[in-house]
Amino acid sequence: MENRSYEPEKNAKDVSLQELRDMLAEFARVRGWEQYHSPRNLLLALVGEVGELSEIFQWKGEVERGLPNWSAAEREHLEEEVSDVLLYLVRLADVCGLDLGHAALSKLVKNANKYPVAAFARALP
Amino acid sequence: MENRSYEPEKNAKDVSLQELRDMLAEFARVRGWEQYHSPRNLLLALVGEVGELSEIFQWKGEVERGLPNWSAAEREHLEEEVSDVLLYLVRLADVCGLDLGHAALSKLVKNANKYPVAAFARALP
Amino acid sequence: MENRSYEPEKNAKDVSLQELRDMLAEFARVRGWEQYHSPRNLLLALVGEVGELSEIFQWKGEVERGLPNWSAAEREHLEEEVSDVLLYLVRLADVCGLDLGHAALSKLVKNANKYPVAAFARALP
Amino acid sequence: MENRSYEPEKNAKDVSLQELRDMLAEFARVRGWEQYHSPRNLLLALVGEVGELSEIFQWKGEVERGLPNWSAAEREHLEEEVSDVLLYLVRLADVCGLDLGHAALSKLVKNANKYPVAAFARALP
Repeated sequence: MENRSYEPEKNAKDVSLQELRDMLAEFARVRGWEQYHSPRNLLLALVGEVGELSEIFQWKGEVERGLPNWSAAEREHLEEEVSDVLLYLVRLADVCGLDLGHAALSKLVKNANKYPVAAFARALP
Repeated sequence: MENRSYEPEKNAKDVSLQELRDMLAEFARVRGWEQYHSPRNLLLALVGEVGELSEIFQWKGEVERGLPNWSAAEREHLEEEVSDVLLYLVRLADVCGLDLGHAALSKLVKNANKYPVAAFARALP
Repeated sequence: MENRSYEPEKNAKDVSLQELRDMLAEFARVRGWEQYHSPRNLLLALVGEVGELSEIFQWKGEVERGLPNWSAAEREHLEEEVSDVLLYLVRLADVCGLDLGHAALSKLVKNANKYPVAAFARALP
Repeated sequence: MENRSYEPEKNAKDVSLQELRDMLAEFARVRGWEQYHSPRNLLLALVGEVGELSEIFQWKGEVERGLPNWSAAEREHLEEEVSDVLLYLVRLADVCGLDLGHAALSKLVKNANKYPVAAFARALP
């Protein structure tokens, strides 16, 4: 198994997609922001955040797993941008009426059928 | 509270970010794909999926919440593309050594401090 | 023909893709930036600029052609972001060794063959 | 000066942004597509093409300038996707009423003032 010296602390609180969905719906509701949260508005906001995420990586050349040599400030910036993408994605799925967790599990099953292990595992050591 | 006639069925199984993370790590491991899952490769794959998500919405003009009038096939396609974005985002966070759930909760707290309810709620009915 | 009250001033100086390519190559050369201008670095920079472009449109709902009611400052901001996308695209094509103008004309021909006028013009008034 | 063994053939026909703008406007007009070419529709189509461009680079790890070892088919595919991004960008600028060439030159001047050569050239050999 791969060596993950960069693995997040064990026992960190797990977070579910439904928790995030409900927190974001409440966040928008109490601020009167539901009027702005149309599907295409949220989609463009998502694209904006993907842009900010890309900017973090843009001049770095290839980056190693675990981000060795990144400063604490760089990691925190990355955590913020990855989170922004997630939050808009969860909110987009919600206003579209999708169950994101269920959709993700279904897609994983489809992917597993499309790329059967046997077709790839042969070459593994 | 907003009327959500399009709300996903209650009692749908909830899914956590750590579950997805572990499933995706295993998915890559048993197929020998870890070698391809560098941060920038995954980031570009994420951008590719955001592109596919955008294509679904590109010629539609404004789209209403809940996607009234979308066919079952269109909804399923959307579920797949939203899921693909999520799966690459979860995998990207993992290979970067980030705890995505913890990061998302932290960002929500920052957002709540940046946009205090009192500054927006006044205008609500 | 469509009424274009928002048409740019006639006689504005035309600009070619080769001019832009050469100016950008010189811009990078005299600043010692060629070392950073690898294809994937430039691609991620392009994605970053597409994100900034999307942010301009993200909370606006549908926007009419010609951008009526946009302020001069908003238009200038849009001009900057559209330009940033173009400049990185021209530079990306250059470092990949592509002739962008020739490629664009070839693609237009392919599109014209793929979508023959006769298939669409019937429905026109 | 950098060695550009991958430089496109000399004397290739140059292409201007106004030529492309006019060709694309006519392309849409004769097919009755103007009704679909709203700013945000075109922006999402652009994001879709940026996604397809990213897919070409996604599993490749770092890619060298000039794309040595890329097959003719891969290069052609790249030319098509780079072109699609350009064509939607030119069309977006047009329906927004912007003069893209003028905007790009203005942005280059701003960039030159923001990053004066003297601040970077010192370190050059």
